[in-house]
Amino acid sequence: MDISPAKTIEWVGGSGGAARIIDQTLLPNDYKHLDINDVAAMWEAIKVLRVRGAPAIGIAAAFGLYLAVRDSEAADYSAFAAQVNEAAEYLASSRPTAVNLFWALRRIQKLVADNSSLPVPGIKALMLSEAIAMIDEDNAVCRAIGKNGAALLAARANQATCNILTHCNAGGLATAQWGTALAPVYVAAEQGRSIHVFADETRPLLQGARLTAWELQQAGIPVTLITDNMAATVMAQGKVDAVIVGADRVAANGDVANKIGTFGVAILAKEFGIPFYVAAPLSSIDMNLASGELIPIEQRKAEEVTQGFGRLTAPTGIQVYNPAFDVTPHRYITALITEKGVIRPPFDQTLMQLFQTQA
Amino acid sequence: MDISPAKTIEWVGGSGGAARIIDQTLLPNDYKHLDINDVAAMWEAIKVLRVRGAPAIGIAAAFGLYLAVRDSEAADYSAFAAQVNEAAEYLASSRPTAVNLFWALRRIQKLVADNSSLPVPGIKALMLSEAIAMIDEDNAVCRAIGKNGAALLAARANQATCNILTHCNAGGLATAQWGTALAPVYVAAEQGRSIHVFADETRPLLQGARLTAWELQQAGIPVTLITDNMAATVMAQGKVDAVIVGADRVAANGDVANKIGTFGVAILAKEFGIPFYVAAPLSSIDMNLASGELIPIEQRKAEEVTQGFGRLTAPTGIQVYNPAFDVTPHRYITALITEKGVIRPPFDQTLMQLFQTQA
Repeated sequence: MDISPAKTIEWVGGSGGAARIIDQTLLPNDYKHLDINDVAAMWEAIKVLRVRGAPAIGIAAAFGLYLAVRDSEAADYSAFAAQVNEAAEYLASSRPTAVNLFWALRRIQKLVADNSSLPVPGIKALMLSEAIAMIDEDNAVCRAIGKNGAALLAARANQATCNILTHCNAGGLATAQWGTALAPVYVAAEQGRSIHVFADETRPLLQGARLTAWELQQAGIPVTLITDNMAATVMAQGKVDAVIVGADRVAANGDVANKIGTFGVAILAKEFGIPFYVAAPLSSIDMNLASGELIPIEQRKAEEVTQGFGRLTAPTGIQVYNPAFDVTPHRYITALITEKGVIRPPFDQTLMQLFQTQA
Repeated sequence: MDISPAKTIEWVGGSGGAARIIDQTLLPNDYKHLDINDVAAMWEAIKVLRVRGAPAIGIAAAFGLYLAVRDSEAADYSAFAAQVNEAAEYLASSRPTAVNLFWALRRIQKLVADNSSLPVPGIKALMLSEAIAMIDEDNAVCRAIGKNGAALLAARANQATCNILTHCNAGGLATAQWGTALAPVYVAAEQGRSIHVFADETRPLLQGARLTAWELQQAGIPVTLITDNMAATVMAQGKVDAVIVGADRVAANGDVANKIGTFGVAILAKEFGIPFYVAAPLSSIDMNLASGELIPIEQRKAEEVTQGFGRLTAPTGIQVYNPAFDVTPHRYITALITEKGVIRPPFDQTLMQLFQTQA
């Protein structure tokens, strides 16, 4: 099967071109692209979540930095570098907690500094090609995760159709094109496997209903939308061969911070003997973090729960608990699917080995 | 603490009075009563869920039947009985799958038949007093469940505040006033216990957010609203002392059919060693049903999931699985809280003993 997930972000045209993004604020009702030609528009796009997902935001910020100085008439390097650094600070203010955003900005800033001897137009060209290279890198990482995950599914599934359950959106829409948790699904489909996905709607923000269901439908992968509290029923019916989710952050012991609800799904999977896989690039694994208990959990506003759909669906003044993430202890995780292979328990040892090999 | 849950349904005035209901379609935004003076208005109220919950619907139907013939000028018993039976058929068409509705109508019809020798005005008076008696009976059953459940909580809780998690609405709004799953909460609060409830919002129809959160807030019981997929997190944090849910139907082996999501909560409770209680009157226990596997599960329309809040939150044409109920196998259930006491495993034996004692 020919699979081509929608491109979340790409560069169109040459040095005078634009960053073309899918405007995710319009999904799932409207599928529209937006060409971004200046840094203010990119700042706004990141701020209001037209582009979201850690890897995609990093790439967007890199393009934003190029756009900020593309028309610079700075006469020398130091004037140019000052403009770059000012623009980086501006872009960093769009989503202050997004780690990939800072990482991408620093990467471009370092590239600029490393090439201070070049004429300014040359540095500009390097900035654009580096941002474009980040898309290629992201695609390579996601494709590798996809191949490693698809091999796992091939080894396990003994039915005609392989049924995957996923939570939230760790799909192409969170990266340049292929996603992390959904990459194994796309690659398995390419390999001719019959595959079907149950998408948890993922309250309160409905990323599963709005984004995962949309991108799988768009790519031609059979998908069934369920509410979060139906996962136990489809598992009990034997309809789920494996769970694959993404990760916001993985600790050195294998604990996984991810969208709220992930932990519950992991417990259900354990109860039904269903493998629970976490797809994550090495860049999401924080070897300086001993365990998931150390990850602070962001509390979000009550209105996401009480009027997340445009109208009030709970009593006025009701107390709400709305953590954005939860931490799944490593003992619930069957394996981590990375671009460097499938990592199995004991994670404290296997992750250390993995990073020693990389070093 | 003085506890007085809102009355879901009551009779106001004498024989010429009205059935006063809380219009639940307006909750949680507006708390308004509706006085129902004729059978057509009662049919409509049941149909569009102004009054809902099996016990409450039964009582509503009994009042509806009285209202249908209150002004009857039938000259003799047979003409009157024909009017009663015609009205019963009409009321039964309001919600064709509600067992309590049929049961309540048959009860009034039998009362009419048993008193065929009385003059018509005497039969009318009996019909009204029987419907009012059904409220008293419902309150007595719910209060007994409340006392039995509160004793359980007192025996278990070793903290200053007892924290209960519940799913959907098996509260006063589903019965005349006190509820089943929430009755132990109300009684414990009356006894001066410090009690707090986590209410799962209960997608897709949000009965937890709209009804449970509302009625507890109204009664002055501290309540925190969470999305269904946050239950694992609050349990992991040690914040839940017990789960109490209601039941649509209990099989002879203790399997419980209840609102979708109940099974998942039961699995989480087991994982965290938290007792999982099902509060149910004997009338909900079907000793002719050997196990929960035999209970057919109603599939509901996709729109409840894709546009349950008034606007589309999923892609057009997406496949949706939307079962209204799930079945929790008896092995996940710590005890059943009934009006005749707390029933513990092995349920196939203890339930049989219970019903033999009753017979």
